Amino acid sequence: MTVTITAFECSPDGGQGLARDMRVRWALEEVGQRYAVRLVSFAGMKQPAHCALHPFGQIPTYEDGDLALFESGAIILHIADRHAGLLPDAAPDAGNARARAITWMFAALNTVEPPIVDLEQAPYLEGDRSWYAERMPLLEDRVRNRLNDLSARLGDADWLDGGFSAGDLLMVMVLRRLDGTGLVAEYPNLTAYVARGTARPAYRRAFADQRAVFAAAPTG
Amino acid sequence: MTVTITAFECSPDGGQGLARDMRVRWALEEVGQRYAVRLVSFAGMKQPAHCALHPFGQIPTYEDGDLALFESGAIILHIADRHAGLLPDAAPDAGNARARAITWMFAALNTVEPPIVDLEQAPYLEGDRSWYAERMPLLEDRVRNRLNDLSARLGDADWLDGGFSAGDLLMVMVLRRLDGTGLVAEYPNLTAYVARGTARPAYRRAFADQRAVFAAAPTG
Repeated sequence: MTVTITAFECSPDGGQGLARDMRVRWALEEVGQRYAVRLVSFAGMKQPAHCALHPFGQIPTYEDGDLALFESGAIILHIADRHAGLLPDAAPDAGNARARAITWMFAALNTVEPPIVDLEQAPYLEGDRSWYAERMPLLEDRVRNRLNDLSARLGDADWLDGGFSAGDLLMVMVLRRLDGTGLVAEYPNLTAYVARGTARPAYRRAFADQRAVFAAAPTG
Repeated sequence: MTVTITAFECSPDGGQGLARDMRVRWALEEVGQRYAVRLVSFAGMKQPAHCALHPFGQIPTYEDGDLALFESGAIILHIADRHAGLLPDAAPDAGNARARAITWMFAALNTVEPPIVDLEQAPYLEGDRSWYAERMPLLEDRVRNRLNDLSARLGDADWLDGGFSAGDLLMVMVLRRLDGTGLVAEYPNLTAYVARGTARPAYRRAFADQRAVFAAAPTG
């Protein structure tokens, strides 16, 4: 059986690996699971065939035989449930570590990512509004609130809770959405944390593969 | 061993059950797990003792013996892993249904909730700004984008994917954050969906318990 994911036919980030398929690619590389990629256009994402897979008309999706999933967090948790390498064992004496790692997955997606998405999307959604320039510092401060707490908790550890986990994978990808803002650079330990994640061989393979799609994409 | 969760000493919603402890209370009631509640003040949430449990200084937290968790989604997934009643079985022939239900947990928290939180918090965060009134319709439309897709997927089904699951629990609670906006009322099937969820006996017990805390809270 072949695992198939979806990704943008022409990524709006120019191959920087910021689209959410990158998270799933990285997870699949960490566990050594081969996969196929089906590219979808922006118009195609909103068509019935794709919305049957993803009710909100987005990428990525994940198909494996008769199973179809969406939401990068859920897909990565599913991969982690079936392969070693992304979460601590669920064995009775290690279940606590697994539950804590899963907590960081939710923290990345529900607590840290939302203000980062708001900051990232403001130029597209409200860049032409009169309040745009005055409002941006408010958005940056909301991101800093989260980064302050995250930096304090990480301290001088390599990863958020013991060894590398799917919680770190998602957190690193969420922090990468701040590339170009200078915000992560205000926190040396978070800067090192992101560098540690993106130096992993599995990350680098995933990054190269998503970039190859962009390089091959039709232009204009 | 006693499960202990944290909740606001004086809930800012006046006992309407919109704080995130309500999600965990509901889940614990669905599975019949007794629990204790430790109340925390707004000042206390930012103190080291609480931040050791919750790095972002929020509620709820979950403690069970030597396990401490935060993030309502992660807590509910942990409860569902240990008790029947919130997710389909993980048995080989039913694992797909379980993975799909978990997908809806992430969809509620990472796709549907963020624009709802933005709309809900705008009055507190930007109510005194010159752009506030002009910006609110934009926020409402971003919520409608999600509700359109959610309503289309739900159709005339009772729940999002087969029987009631933790995915429905979280989605109903996320939609309840729109109380008073009139937005859910634009979608008869979502209105009925929320009513179906909040009519469940476990929901009603949880709601009464969180309301009792508010009624007993110190005033002024």
